[in-house]
Amino acid sequence: MNKAPKTAITPTREEDYPEWYQQVIKGADLAENSPVRGCMVIKPWGYSLWENMQRVLDKMFKDTGHKNAYFPLFIPMSFLEKEAQHVEGFAKECAVVTHHRLEPDPETGGLRPAGPLEEPLIVRPTSETIIGAMYAKWVQSYRDLPILINQWANVVRWELRTRLFLRTAEFLWQEGHTVHATAEEAMEETRKMLDVYADFAENYMAVPVIKGEKTAGERFPGADMTLSIEAMMQDRKALQAGTSHFLGQNFSKAQEIKFQDQNGEVAYAWTTSWGVSTRLIGALIMTHSDDDGFVLPPRLAPAHAVILPIYRDDAQRAEVLEYCKKLREELTQKVYAGRIVEVEMDDRDLRGGEKKWYHVKRGVPLRIEVGPKDIAKDSVFVARRDTGEQTSMERSALVNGIADLLQSMQDNLFNRALKMREDNTVEIKTEKEFRAYFTPKNADSPEIHGGFAMCHFSSEEELTPLLGELKVTIRCMPIASNEEPGVCFLTGKPSARRALFAKAY
Amino acid sequence: MNKAPKTAITPTREEDYPEWYQQVIKGADLAENSPVRGCMVIKPWGYSLWENMQRVLDKMFKDTGHKNAYFPLFIPMSFLEKEAQHVEGFAKECAVVTHHRLEPDPETGGLRPAGPLEEPLIVRPTSETIIGAMYAKWVQSYRDLPILINQWANVVRWELRTRLFLRTAEFLWQEGHTVHATAEEAMEETRKMLDVYADFAENYMAVPVIKGEKTAGERFPGADMTLSIEAMMQDRKALQAGTSHFLGQNFSKAQEIKFQDQNGEVAYAWTTSWGVSTRLIGALIMTHSDDDGFVLPPRLAPAHAVILPIYRDDAQRAEVLEYCKKLREELTQKVYAGRIVEVEMDDRDLRGGEKKWYHVKRGVPLRIEVGPKDIAKDSVFVARRDTGEQTSMERSALVNGIADLLQSMQDNLFNRALKMREDNTVEIKTEKEFRAYFTPKNADSPEIHGGFAMCHFSSEEELTPLLGELKVTIRCMPIASNEEPGVCFLTGKPSARRALFAKAY
Repeated sequence: MNKAPKTAITPTREEDYPEWYQQVIKGADLAENSPVRGCMVIKPWGYSLWENMQRVLDKMFKDTGHKNAYFPLFIPMSFLEKEAQHVEGFAKECAVVTHHRLEPDPETGGLRPAGPLEEPLIVRPTSETIIGAMYAKWVQSYRDLPILINQWANVVRWELRTRLFLRTAEFLWQEGHTVHATAEEAMEETRKMLDVYADFAENYMAVPVIKGEKTAGERFPGADMTLSIEAMMQDRKALQAGTSHFLGQNFSKAQEIKFQDQNGEVAYAWTTSWGVSTRLIGALIMTHSDDDGFVLPPRLAPAHAVILPIYRDDAQRAEVLEYCKKLREELTQKVYAGRIVEVEMDDRDLRGGEKKWYHVKRGVPLRIEVGPKDIAKDSVFVARRDTGEQTSMERSALVNGIADLLQSMQDNLFNRALKMREDNTVEIKTEKEFRAYFTPKNADSPEIHGGFAMCHFSSEEELTPLLGELKVTIRCMPIASNEEPGVCFLTGKPSARRALFAKAY
Repeated sequence: MNKAPKTAITPTREEDYPEWYQQVIKGADLAENSPVRGCMVIKPWGYSLWENMQRVLDKMFKDTGHKNAYFPLFIPMSFLEKEAQHVEGFAKECAVVTHHRLEPDPETGGLRPAGPLEEPLIVRPTSETIIGAMYAKWVQSYRDLPILINQWANVVRWELRTRLFLRTAEFLWQEGHTVHATAEEAMEETRKMLDVYADFAENYMAVPVIKGEKTAGERFPGADMTLSIEAMMQDRKALQAGTSHFLGQNFSKAQEIKFQDQNGEVAYAWTTSWGVSTRLIGALIMTHSDDDGFVLPPRLAPAHAVILPIYRDDAQRAEVLEYCKKLREELTQKVYAGRIVEVEMDDRDLRGGEKKWYHVKRGVPLRIEVGPKDIAKDSVFVARRDTGEQTSMERSALVNGIADLLQSMQDNLFNRALKMREDNTVEIKTEKEFRAYFTPKNADSPEIHGGFAMCHFSSEEELTPLLGELKVTIRCMPIASNEEPGVCFLTGKPSARRALFAKAY
C-alpha cells in the first residue's frame, strides 16, 4: 500500500526509530555531524537549549553550596598510569597529544607533526586525576574541607560508533568533584547530587527517572558506589541520564589527598564525583518528540511561543504587525517558572504552511497565529505543540493564562512519559518470560522490544551469558523499590531485592 | 636600610612588577599553575569573576543579534594545510593529537600511545577553519545571511613562556564568526564588535582603552583589517585586550563560502571574527590592583561587599550575628548596575587582622565591620577597597546609598586608570626622544619604562630595526586621534597620521 507521508518527520518512530531520531534533530536544526570524526556541531537552537539546562543546573549546584572552577584540558599520561594500576576497567580510548608543533613536510608539500612531547598528554575523558592532583595540594587540614567544586567543560572519549548527543567523541558536560572529611558526608553528597539530577530531569526536562544504585559490574571504575538516574525512551530502551559516584578513599589514596583532622591525626579524605552531559538533550528528544518532530518542555524551551502574523497585503500587514507586536509585549511581561516568557515573532516571507511546520519541527511549545479576522474579534489562534490541540482564544485569556497553559503542557509531557514507562514496566519471574519480553516482536522494527523489567536476581556473574545474548543490562537497583525478598528469575537462588533490567543506550 | 613590609603583597609594584603580579594572583586565590606545562587552574574566586564577565559580554552579543553555538575542539591537519598555503604568518605551535588509544607498554610497565590516526588532529588554536567548513555548507543563498554566531570555548596555543591569565597554553575565550553578503556589512560588524569590547572594558572593567587599527605587520594572519583595543597597565606597558577582524573574502575563498545573491549570481561571502579571552582578567589585575593586592571593579565583583561580625563572647556573638544577617538581607534587596547586590558574610574563626587582609587581598569592594559598639549607634564601619578610606556610617545610609557608593568606586577606578594613561602618554618627534623614552630609567626596575608614545611614521619596515632593538611595537593607529599630517620621527618622510607606540604584553 502506497501512502503519502502524513507526518513532518520521515520515517516515523514505528518505521525506523534510530533514523527517526536523526531526522528529528535535523528537522529541529539542533546539531549535525562535523568533518571531524565523531565530533558534532551544536547549532544555535540546540545550544540555547543547552544554555537553559546549564543555567538551571548551575543554580541548583550553587544553591547546594558548590562553586565553579576550571582545570586543564590535558592530563599527563603518567597520571593515567597511576590510575590504570589501581583500576581494572581503565578506559583506553582517548585522544593522545604527542607533538606540539606543525612544520612543513617537504615530501608532501603539506604539514607534519613536529616537536615530540617528552610525556604524551591525554585530552581529558574525565578529570578525577588532574583535579585530584590539585586537591592534594589544597587540602592540608580539616579546615580546608569540604571542597565543593564543579566544572563545566568539554571532554573527549574515542567512541567507535557515535550518534548525535547520545554518544559523541567530544561532548559538553559538568563534572562535580568534592572532598570530605568523613565517609558519611561524602555519601550524603553523592545522594544529594543524585536528587538534584532527578529533580532537574523530572521538573525541568519533564523526564521521569528511576533513581538507583549500580551493581558492582556497572560501577564507575574506582567507585565504591555509583548512583544513577535511568529514563525510558519511546523505543522502551533505558537511557542513563546522570551519575553520582561515591569514590570512597580510592582516589584520595592514589593521589595522596590527606588532611590533619581535629585531633591532629592525618587521614585520607573521602571524595565524590558526579556529572551530566549534552547526552541529556538526546534523552529529551527521545522522550517527548513525535512523528512531527521535536517537542520542547516549556521550562527549558529557548522560546515559549512563536507569533506568526498572517496577512495578504501591505495594508493588512501594518495592522497585523502592530497587533502582534503589542501581543508580544504583553506576553513578555509575564513570568513562567522563574523566567520571563520568551516570544519569537516570525515575519519571514515564507508560505504559511512552510512556516508553521518549521516551528512544529523545532518544538516551540505554543504557536500563535494572528490574522485580520482574529484581530476583529480580539482573539488569537493558539496551537499546543504537545497535543496538537488548536483553539481560538481571546487575547486577554492567552496573556493572563500563558503561565498556566505552559505549566499544563509541562505536566502533560511528564505524565505522558510516566504513563509510557508504567505501561511498559513488568515484573518477571522466569527465564522464559524474560527471553520472550526482550526478544523483538516484529522483524521490521528490530529496535522495539519489551521495556523495563523488575526482576529478582542473586548473582550478576550468573546472569552475564543470558544478558549478553539478549543485549540486556542491569540498569540499577532502584532506591524506591519495595524490598520484599524473592528468588532469582534465572537460578531460583534467594534474592533480597529486585533490580531494573532493560536494553539501553 | 632594613624595613618591615608595610604592604600585604611582597614585593611591591615598584620593587618587582612581574613578581608583584604573580603574588596578587596568589593572594587573591584567583588561579595557579597546574602540573600540565603552561596550563592554569582557574580557582573559584577567579572563575566567578570570569562568569560575571561572560554574563555581561554574552548579553551584549545577544543584544547585537548574535547566537551561541558550539564547534569541535579538533581541527583536521588538512584544514590548516589549506590555511598555511594562503597565509604567511601561519602559527605552528599547537597541540597535535596523533593517536586515539593508550595501551599497556610491556617495556616500561606503564602506558603508551596506540591506534595512530590516519590524519593528525589539531586542538583548536582558533576556529576559523572548522567553523568556515560548516558555514560553507550552511550558506547557499543571500537568504541565509548574515550568520551571526559566537562560541565560548577553550583554545590551545603552545606558548613557550607562560604567565597566569596573560599567556597560557590553554585559555578560555569567546570567538565570534560572522558571514555577510557585502563588504560594508562585514566592516560594520567588525567595528560594532570593537565598540562592544570597548564598552565592556571601560564601563564594566573600568579599564580605559584606545580603539585602533593594526598596521599590516601586526594584523591577524589572513585579515584585511584588524581592529583592537589597547590598555595601559601600571608598568606603563600596553596590553591588547580584544581584537575584531575584517577577513574580507580571504577565508570565504579558501573555504568556498559562496552564496547566490538576489540577482542569481554566485558570490563569495565576507567574513569577520572577533574575540576576547581570560587574558582580560590579567588586564583587570594589572590596571587596578595595588600593593595590598587585588582591586575589583564593583560591576564585575563576585561579591560587592563582605560583612565581618566582630565579637568577644557568645552573648555578643548572638546579637552581632543577628544584626549582620538583617543588614545583609537589607543590602541584598538593593540593585546595583542591573545586578542584585551580593554580600558575603565571613564568620570564620580567624583573627580579625587575618580576616581583614584576606578580603583586602581578594579585592572585595566594600568591607563592612560590625561590633557591639557599632550596633549601639546603629552604625557600621565601612572600608573602601579602592581608596582604603574607612568611615563609620549609619546603617540606613549604607543600605540606601550602597548603589551610589559602588558606582563612585567604579568611576574612581576608571578615572584613576585614565589619568595614569594620560600622564604617561606623550607625542614624540625625534629618534633621540624616542630612544630616551623607551630606555629604562632605573636599572633596578627594568620593566618600568616610558609609557605610550604617539608618533608620526611613514613606513613600518623602516622602523623594524629600531623597534626590535627597544622592544617596542606599533600598537595601533588610533581611530579617535587627530589626523593632522606630519613627518616620520625616524626618517622625516611625510606621514598622514600618528600611531600608538609602546612596549607590550
